[in-house]
Amino acid sequence: MNELIVLSDVSDGTAVLTLNNPARRNALSAELMVALTHAIESASENPGVRVIVIRANGPVFSAGHDLRELVGHEQTEYEAVFEICTELMTVIRTVDQPVIAEVHGLATAAGCQLVAACDLSVASEDAKFATPGVNIGLFCTTPGVAVSRAVPRKKAMEMLLTGEPISAGEAERAGLVNRVVPAEELEVTTRALAERIASSSGETIKLGKDAFYRQIEMDTDAAYRFGQSKMVENLGKVDAKEGIQAFLDKRKPKWST
Amino acid sequence: MNELIVLSDVSDGTAVLTLNNPARRNALSAELMVALTHAIESASENPGVRVIVIRANGPVFSAGHDLRELVGHEQTEYEAVFEICTELMTVIRTVDQPVIAEVHGLATAAGCQLVAACDLSVASEDAKFATPGVNIGLFCTTPGVAVSRAVPRKKAMEMLLTGEPISAGEAERAGLVNRVVPAEELEVTTRALAERIASSSGETIKLGKDAFYRQIEMDTDAAYRFGQSKMVENLGKVDAKEGIQAFLDKRKPKWST
Amino acid sequence: MNELIVLSDVSDGTAVLTLNNPARRNALSAELMVALTHAIESASENPGVRVIVIRANGPVFSAGHDLRELVGHEQTEYEAVFEICTELMTVIRTVDQPVIAEVHGLATAAGCQLVAACDLSVASEDAKFATPGVNIGLFCTTPGVAVSRAVPRKKAMEMLLTGEPISAGEAERAGLVNRVVPAEELEVTTRALAERIASSSGETIKLGKDAFYRQIEMDTDAAYRFGQSKMVENLGKVDAKEGIQAFLDKRKPKWST
Repeated sequence: MNELIVLSDVSDGTAVLTLNNPARRNALSAELMVALTHAIESASENPGVRVIVIRANGPVFSAGHDLRELVGHEQTEYEAVFEICTELMTVIRTVDQPVIAEVHGLATAAGCQLVAACDLSVASEDAKFATPGVNIGLFCTTPGVAVSRAVPRKKAMEMLLTGEPISAGEAERAGLVNRVVPAEELEVTTRALAERIASSSGETIKLGKDAFYRQIEMDTDAAYRFGQSKMVENLGKVDAKEGIQAFLDKRKPKWST
Repeated sequence: MNELIVLSDVSDGTAVLTLNNPARRNALSAELMVALTHAIESASENPGVRVIVIRANGPVFSAGHDLRELVGHEQTEYEAVFEICTELMTVIRTVDQPVIAEVHGLATAAGCQLVAACDLSVASEDAKFATPGVNIGLFCTTPGVAVSRAVPRKKAMEMLLTGEPISAGEAERAGLVNRVVPAEELEVTTRALAERIASSSGETIKLGKDAFYRQIEMDTDAAYRFGQSKMVENLGKVDAKEGIQAFLDKRKPKWST
Repeated sequence: MNELIVLSDVSDGTAVLTLNNPARRNALSAELMVALTHAIESASENPGVRVIVIRANGPVFSAGHDLRELVGHEQTEYEAVFEICTELMTVIRTVDQPVIAEVHGLATAAGCQLVAACDLSVASEDAKFATPGVNIGLFCTTPGVAVSRAVPRKKAMEMLLTGEPISAGEAERAGLVNRVVPAEELEVTTRALAERIASSSGETIKLGKDAFYRQIEMDTDAAYRFGQSKMVENLGKVDAKEGIQAFLDKRKPKWST
């Protein structure tokens, strides 16, 4: 049996998770979403993993939900599908390691949500992004939760109301994508970005990623109070002490995490 | 008597509402704002209307509040003017149909707010946008409510503090405008955008537009919980069942709404 | 003794505050931050000051916290440093006058936060912006509070997770900077922007700046209710009455504030 999610070697600190159901355009079936959630959690628990990359086999990054699961079933089954989907998106935000989407081809509906939900994303020039639920009578409301927190409001509305794809360049200008590169440079660019992050202290990245998503939901005064406490907590960590001392000593730091 | 708001034919599903007081630069007098609010509500209640476009006659889209209403009156009268203005902006956000601003010439102060408050906007290359209240000692605070939710914070502050106009291109890059086209293509581009949206299921668009503006005010976890419930609600609608089945059957859907 | 903060002549309504510790790369030591906070408050209390500009001497705008204060001390001392830092950023947001950052060279960590916390910013083409705390094991969490409220979420995350600098052009596209100009035009451009703002009524700018930062934390309905009350309050001010009447009379207004 083919695995829905393939985990590549993590020798360089980067766990690469590949969506591997190209015949189904990497549809986010409940089974695949559960497998991806578990693969992320499992990679996250591996102390050697410092960054997680999500990529895909086949011409399409991901076409979103498996529509066969969204017609002719009981309401409780639908509820389960979206609960699983939200759990996946939430795990990406809450695991210790940064998660980078490496996107080629089409990322649509919940596939576009997956990109928006990652901490960072790199796209090939051919990539396209869409929330085309309106074409099938099912508004991309949950993809919109992630997309509207990544791009300006009117751009999110345009994607959601028209369902039309935007190019990688438009996605970059809007804030959905961090970098756009030729297809042949997609993997190496993503890996270089991952290695850059993997060269930092694990506990620093963990503390910072968690704090970022917490403070951004607060009003500015509360965010500063919370942020101050996190800075002080960070200074109590062994890697901060080492990092600052190394800087003052003009030498490279040695991270313990 | 000339109508302040002219409603064009809606045979294609698009109700076009034209601000029609060019001699007064389409100032948003209380009378005009009430007329526009009623015209939007009336269009919205017409089952044949799937999209609403707001455009303007004359060289200026809208110069904002009628200043004669903002000097020499009682405080209660001022309160009434801004209550009417907020009601107009709120109706745009809460009617079932998407509302598109079709902008040429100048959109200033509350006229700029009107553009920012619409779901989408299309502008001609000559269009300019400004919140110039500082020039008359009246900071554009309520326009700023809409503008600061459409564009990055420092760009909003720059517009508000300097009062200087930005070009259509700058407005597009900032997120205030979705598309910029030559003046002679403004109408056809807006109409094509409207028709694209009008080709979707009305109940899907209604559910999605409402859910979008509700979820964007929530923290991410709450937004996902709310979004999940909306996806399940959407799946219970006849048009979603038809749309998904049509997709699986590789045929065009027939919307009932 | 050299002053850490130099106040330039305010004859044109603009108080220019210069970070003046180039030998220490204008590090935001507790002493310098307190001096800058006091200088801002003092300038703000001068009735002749209508705009405040923050610039720097030497090749670096500011390298952020003085790291000697962040290693080998008691936790209460760290808490004091970040309390002082937040107070500085909060004073910038809450003083009556707009504060403009005039940035050349490097603005890193809390130095980047300082730029993000200003109402507006102008940068020379050579300027670079970074939140490089990850390089020393100390995530830029508090700088991230300001940066993530100025730029799109994924761009903020990229800066925070990689620590790599972005160019002035990237900073402008992301929303961190309002204008980018050749180094030799930096001062004159910033001064022209300041003079533009200084030509407006002081009480109008004060009311508007305060209202802007309050409404942006609210949900849209609450923001409109609050904004309406501020518009009515603004109309009761002498400068609004003068400004509107002058506009209707087609003459230049004479501000009393």
